[in-house]
Amino acid sequence: MSHRISNFNPGPAVLPEEALREAREALLDYRGSGMGVMELSHRSALYEEIHFGLMETLRELLGAGEEWEVLLLQGGASLQFSMVPMNLMRGGRAAYVLTGEWAQRAAKEARRHGEVEVAASTEAEQFRRVPRGEEVTVAEGAEYLHFTSNNTIFGTQFHDEPPSAGAPLVADMSSDFLSRPVRLDRYGLIYAGAQKNLGPAGLTVVLLRRELLDRSPAALPTMLSYRTHAEARSLYNTPPTWAIYLASLCARWLQREGGLAAAAERNRAKADRLYAAFDAHDLYRPTAERESRSWMNVTFRLSDPNLEKPFLKGAEERGLVGLKGHRSVGGMRASLYNAMPPAGVEALVGYLHEFARTQG
Amino acid sequence: MSHRISNFNPGPAVLPEEALREAREALLDYRGSGMGVMELSHRSALYEEIHFGLMETLRELLGAGEEWEVLLLQGGASLQFSMVPMNLMRGGRAAYVLTGEWAQRAAKEARRHGEVEVAASTEAEQFRRVPRGEEVTVAEGAEYLHFTSNNTIFGTQFHDEPPSAGAPLVADMSSDFLSRPVRLDRYGLIYAGAQKNLGPAGLTVVLLRRELLDRSPAALPTMLSYRTHAEARSLYNTPPTWAIYLASLCARWLQREGGLAAAAERNRAKADRLYAAFDAHDLYRPTAERESRSWMNVTFRLSDPNLEKPFLKGAEERGLVGLKGHRSVGGMRASLYNAMPPAGVEALVGYLHEFARTQG
Repeated sequence: MSHRISNFNPGPAVLPEEALREAREALLDYRGSGMGVMELSHRSALYEEIHFGLMETLRELLGAGEEWEVLLLQGGASLQFSMVPMNLMRGGRAAYVLTGEWAQRAAKEARRHGEVEVAASTEAEQFRRVPRGEEVTVAEGAEYLHFTSNNTIFGTQFHDEPPSAGAPLVADMSSDFLSRPVRLDRYGLIYAGAQKNLGPAGLTVVLLRRELLDRSPAALPTMLSYRTHAEARSLYNTPPTWAIYLASLCARWLQREGGLAAAAERNRAKADRLYAAFDAHDLYRPTAERESRSWMNVTFRLSDPNLEKPFLKGAEERGLVGLKGHRSVGGMRASLYNAMPPAGVEALVGYLHEFARTQG
Repeated sequence: MSHRISNFNPGPAVLPEEALREAREALLDYRGSGMGVMELSHRSALYEEIHFGLMETLRELLGAGEEWEVLLLQGGASLQFSMVPMNLMRGGRAAYVLTGEWAQRAAKEARRHGEVEVAASTEAEQFRRVPRGEEVTVAEGAEYLHFTSNNTIFGTQFHDEPPSAGAPLVADMSSDFLSRPVRLDRYGLIYAGAQKNLGPAGLTVVLLRRELLDRSPAALPTMLSYRTHAEARSLYNTPPTWAIYLASLCARWLQREGGLAAAAERNRAKADRLYAAFDAHDLYRPTAERESRSWMNVTFRLSDPNLEKPFLKGAEERGLVGLKGHRSVGGMRASLYNAMPPAGVEALVGYLHEFARTQG
């Protein structure tokens, strides 16, 4: 048995133990081929089964039909901050909802390629919430409306899509991708780094409506055009084969566990357990406003900031790691992605009560 | 014991068995942390040791001092085809040596960012050799001279750098990186996808002289600027942590095996064994001209093309896989990267003699 702790890291994050065990068997000899998964040619039948298998499982999980392209890319959400405007903005304007650091970075990159209109921002409230629908104004002629569905640093999440006034909705779902069902009909493009809910770092998934491919300018660098990757079924150049393999194991695990509806129930229940523990003690101060609370990243502070250090130290001693908040905001953060088992959350809840009692 | 065959794949390729065994132990519980390598935060001390450790081992292997930046990126050589001209061309002109498909693709991408002068091309000879030094002409004012040090498809390799007439030399070393010592003083920038000589797919290494960072235009998309990654020590966003971990194991293995001088001896000896077997039988026709023969990708045909299918079938039956040539040129190709053990080459040599005898 391997020693395993409760890993609340914000990403790269905990992965399903079942998937890791399966991967261990594939390192030196994948299916009796005499080669490990990382040693397979990306042009081989064995690898193609993994590659197209992941695309298919993602389609099944999300209910994405043929009108969607599923791309397996590299570079993280940060490269998508540029690829989205390069491919979709047509040198015109786009609208961005600003709900935290990542949303701001996305908007900043877009400004290099056209005009960015801020559709809504909660910066004046230190991003403690996401905007309500009626606060969102999409500028006339916007080529798309971009938003960040879950804000890892501030612990907020959209529980409804912002209204986009007819513009295609583009979402950075890096930190809640596959954590709950998605009403795909509302979206034009979705992107996500894999290293939170889907798999390891080094893989970025992009879903986009096929009709949007026409927007990609012919003059774009080949690797930065969605059209290149769509036409080559994400085999234009060597893909990150191991990350794709791992993601395929994780996606199938998610499917066996009941798909996205079941994942949403588990994720919501896990988060609710923590928020309920906060409510039971004056010591804990969740930082996000109630209606914007994230199911993925639960951020909180202690009423006495001097207690944060001993709190984190005690947590580590109990095998509860990765609870330190992002360096830009401090405090605490428990990330509860798909692969965080309920038992890990229960252990943290137990510690929250225990720590509060010792301060009592 | 795992079943292992002789894997002559051109990349992703065989990896050192020692590194794979070590990696297997790190999947679920890295150094007693209770987390697998893929589950470590990229901001943790445990991960940073891996990350900076790889940079350091690469520096040691190559003898790269502080005047060099070592970047760990994503996107493969194909993304470098764009990043090189975006960062170094200053909108002016650059010279390219054309020795095969990858060199051509690099030149094609560069044309989007400035003027490309062909310094030499062996296309008229179907790329059967690389140009001799005296055939290379670097245009006045070229910001750099780009060449592909080893041509995977055509089985040719530069055994001397092309003269660059004072322009910084930029090399795509994807298929011979770390296979032999490099006279770094001749270069301005070197890039390589990891999936041939260094590790798994999903990691791209760039070495560049610090002074060249000044060339990166401020208007570049953040993720496409070398300056971003140099300043953040390749931690601007989440790096491909597993690929970096694997590469660090492979690089340390290479170091234990005696470094690049010893690797060069082994690699040359492996290739020589094959070329000698070709010379012994009229049946085999190496496709590259003698003085341009690659130590990494040994390409050949059979005097009777009808024998290629039975040749490949017989090879597979003997556990010699990945010998089919690139789809664009056909024929056969044996890739002999660092991790291909001499025993694998001996098995192939044995089969070359055996097959020739059966054709009597």
